[in-house]
Amino acid sequence: MRVKHKKWAEPLMHDHPEMMVMDPAQLKGEWNKRFEKEQPLQLEVGMGKGQFIIGMAKAHPEINFIGLEVEHTVAAIALKKALPEKLPNLQLVCADGADLTDFFAPHSIDRMYLNFSDPWPKKRHAKRRLTYHTFLSGYQTILKAHGAIELKTDNMGFFEFSLVSMNNFGMQFDGVWLDLHHSDEAKQNVETEYEHKFSELGQPIYKLTAHFN
Amino acid sequence: MRVKHKKWAEPLMHDHPEMMVMDPAQLKGEWNKRFEKEQPLQLEVGMGKGQFIIGMAKAHPEINFIGLEVEHTVAAIALKKALPEKLPNLQLVCADGADLTDFFAPHSIDRMYLNFSDPWPKKRHAKRRLTYHTFLSGYQTILKAHGAIELKTDNMGFFEFSLVSMNNFGMQFDGVWLDLHHSDEAKQNVETEYEHKFSELGQPIYKLTAHFN
Repeated sequence: MRVKHKKWAEPLMHDHPEMMVMDPAQLKGEWNKRFEKEQPLQLEVGMGKGQFIIGMAKAHPEINFIGLEVEHTVAAIALKKALPEKLPNLQLVCADGADLTDFFAPHSIDRMYLNFSDPWPKKRHAKRRLTYHTFLSGYQTILKAHGAIELKTDNMGFFEFSLVSMNNFGMQFDGVWLDLHHSDEAKQNVETEYEHKFSELGQPIYKLTAHFN
Repeated sequence: MRVKHKKWAEPLMHDHPEMMVMDPAQLKGEWNKRFEKEQPLQLEVGMGKGQFIIGMAKAHPEINFIGLEVEHTVAAIALKKALPEKLPNLQLVCADGADLTDFFAPHSIDRMYLNFSDPWPKKRHAKRRLTYHTFLSGYQTILKAHGAIELKTDNMGFFEFSLVSMNNFGMQFDGVWLDLHHSDEAKQNVETEYEHKFSELGQPIYKLTAHFN
């Protein structure tokens, strides 16, 4: 996600080291020290403006959440939104999702979320898609045994690619929804900003939950 | 598929034993004797009125095709349509798809097609869906090593179920299409009667190709 540069973004992030992590590699293996309680750890890669991860942190105080976003201004917008909520179980990270194994110890994450990732529609950019096998390999390393990934997207091509890629990697599917907002699964769904906008236009939202064996 | 009973159905089938097989168990291990040439064998389970399997037999003379349909009147309609084509590479069978391992020798089929199968939408009928694991086990027995299944449907719930079921069975996905008729895969697509009707109404057609390991 790219947005217009905002002057206040960098200062805000540097003013809030208690919530915003700019050098996550330093915390490898020690993430629970950043939270009030030691409890299961869940990670969103590409949190965008943060609506989903903030909503999850509010709904599940029994879980610690980390939201990761590579774009500085976008991460700062999420921070601005998160600060007034004063959530002891939420940390935000501004860093590149390609380096996850530098940031998190093996088998330290309980569950991961990929919401409306950049679809990189051109074939020559397939390697950049967050469900390309090199990324899946990283997720497998940091996730606990049988750790699950939840993926949501409105992009048909990216969803088709992800189904094949995650299947071929040997992941076991727990559920597939081809129109999430008109399914039983909708009740427990926490929306992202992007999802809210697109589903209001009547576009179907796709969801896949799968785990490593 | 159910249609109105037609008086001419049974006599027509019995008049054409050269094309219509009523007791397929007798041919187990000897199907190639029913064709002019010994060549790869492909099977459609639930051929309906036969448009797909007849179209495939015309397009691929280098392959032998078998179309199977449990409803007698429906099978007779397919026969009526197939007869004038005089295809030496097509055989039709009127029998129940649940008994495939009685009809076909292990590893004798090269490829299978499941087109617009009955979705059996009620949960208590899940066992009747043609992608339930008991059916997949039968397909694995009769298919050659790495033998593929091609599935098409317009039913979202059945497609969601099939993706999960075939993944959990350990099948490897070769391709997923969530809107077949607006994809590159459309060029080589042979339509069924049902598919033609539904896609004309603007409904998306789903396709999955997968193979056993």
